[in-house]
Amino acid sequence: MVDNFHELALLGRLATGLRKTPDILLRLSPGVDPHTHSHVATGVLDSKFGFPLTTGQAEEALTKAMSTPGLKLTGLHFHLGSSLFEVEPYLQAIDLVLQFAAQMKQRHRFDLRELNVGGGFAVQYLLDSPAPSVSRYADAIVSALVEQTGELKLEQPRLVIEPGRSVVARAGTALYTIGASKDIPGLRRYVFVDGGMGDNIRPALYDSKYEAVVANKMGQPETDVVTIAGKFCESGDILVKDVRLPKPEAGDVLAMPTSGAYSIPMSSNYNASLRPAIAMVKEGKARLIRRRETYDDLTAHDSV
Amino acid sequence: MVDNFHELALLGRLATGLRKTPDILLRLSPGVDPHTHSHVATGVLDSKFGFPLTTGQAEEALTKAMSTPGLKLTGLHFHLGSSLFEVEPYLQAIDLVLQFAAQMKQRHRFDLRELNVGGGFAVQYLLDSPAPSVSRYADAIVSALVEQTGELKLEQPRLVIEPGRSVVARAGTALYTIGASKDIPGLRRYVFVDGGMGDNIRPALYDSKYEAVVANKMGQPETDVVTIAGKFCESGDILVKDVRLPKPEAGDVLAMPTSGAYSIPMSSNYNASLRPAIAMVKEGKARLIRRRETYDDLTAHDSV
Repeated sequence: MVDNFHELALLGRLATGLRKTPDILLRLSPGVDPHTHSHVATGVLDSKFGFPLTTGQAEEALTKAMSTPGLKLTGLHFHLGSSLFEVEPYLQAIDLVLQFAAQMKQRHRFDLRELNVGGGFAVQYLLDSPAPSVSRYADAIVSALVEQTGELKLEQPRLVIEPGRSVVARAGTALYTIGASKDIPGLRRYVFVDGGMGDNIRPALYDSKYEAVVANKMGQPETDVVTIAGKFCESGDILVKDVRLPKPEAGDVLAMPTSGAYSIPMSSNYNASLRPAIAMVKEGKARLIRRRETYDDLTAHDSV
Repeated sequence: MVDNFHELALLGRLATGLRKTPDILLRLSPGVDPHTHSHVATGVLDSKFGFPLTTGQAEEALTKAMSTPGLKLTGLHFHLGSSLFEVEPYLQAIDLVLQFAAQMKQRHRFDLRELNVGGGFAVQYLLDSPAPSVSRYADAIVSALVEQTGELKLEQPRLVIEPGRSVVARAGTALYTIGASKDIPGLRRYVFVDGGMGDNIRPALYDSKYEAVVANKMGQPETDVVTIAGKFCESGDILVKDVRLPKPEAGDVLAMPTSGAYSIPMSSNYNASLRPAIAMVKEGKARLIRRRETYDDLTAHDSV
């Protein structure tokens, strides 16, 4: 996947030097608005990613790639962004990219053998925000691909998708222990947990929303509306705002579902906090697959 | 520093159990707007931090603390937030907290022996945004304290400050190597570096602004306006927008001053990136004080 001219030239030199001929795809920026958070909208025109389709750069990159000895251009790639709750942006992008491929076939005998439409399939974080099913994305993408290649008289390329979040997000649940509470009468009740933005920066970074439950009080009446605050030294360290729970008390276990994507990979040691352990659960049995950090770990690479 | 009733009770039990009598301060939330990013405004009424001064809770906490065997309440604390470019919020908060102390003296014979006004002194990140000098903060805070204690007929308490960022931020400069560039004609030129939101989340998280220079081209004419993009898989991974630099080229070293606070402590292994090395420089000599992470480090705690 080649993103820009610098990489293209660099890869060409490396391939020649190593006497290899790697298959490459070009990453295109199709200029499609994915209707998601601007931080994770990656396929718009003013993006750091990819060759913009609407300038002459995509064609220039394609001819350069085709004429670079040592590189074999087998296809095209785009990635629109993360958490796309609609399929329309995929359809728009497929349409644009296949039109480009047809033009390039005519002008440069380019043969689109692979089309990689990236990822971005949304998952359901909130009870009232269901995500499209995988089959909805698949049907829409495949139908568009079959229809458009037919119209444009292109061979059907191999279709590649890159789901990430939609595979792993629901596989993870974050567990916290509840500590203090703070009631500001008439305003808000904060309930503190022993984690926060250090292990899940998404609420602070993207205003991401999560559900939460009290794991040891499942099924009990949800009587209290509280805000789940982390232990970190910032007001922005709020995990969930105004969630209805059974009366949360110190020692209770708060569970946040759909924490399997981006929590641990983006976790930090902010405030000298220790990154959490990870346990794998299968058929009622739990196994530790990553141990919790220790204070010794925090200074393990220091030489002072 | 006791933040809430839960901590107060817990600390009381611990102290009694251990037969210790720790000195404690109460953290108050004075309800003062510090005019900073909402994520780091910590002393407002709707805050997870401290006993709100404007409710009866601060008085309740004070009487509880004074009557808890095993705890010795020696003073009060507030922390307004981070990066306060004005001194007025400190003056407002000192005024409010000393009035509270005077009331509590009258009603409960509370003796304010220590006043901790927290931190939040701003530093200059941008050439056109100078921060008040340390002496400006000190003069204002000390004058207010002397004047107000005089008016309220209070003994002058010991004054404690907690500067963090203002001590270390300017001691650190982040160094990146420049790689690819991407020009979107008429719109923007992106210049990529080998770091980004993994080692400095502040621009993405708080829209924090930094200056940048090309370290190996200091003094050369600043001919190019570019946007410094990180290597991470998000459009939000932009370190500096539209900065004027001498023509940046692959292999150049980009330096971002004032990176000594919050960059490394909030750094992550996002995208399986390795956290950077830290070198201490003194009188022209450099010494490695933290080594760069390795890929082995990333899986060191895994047991699968």
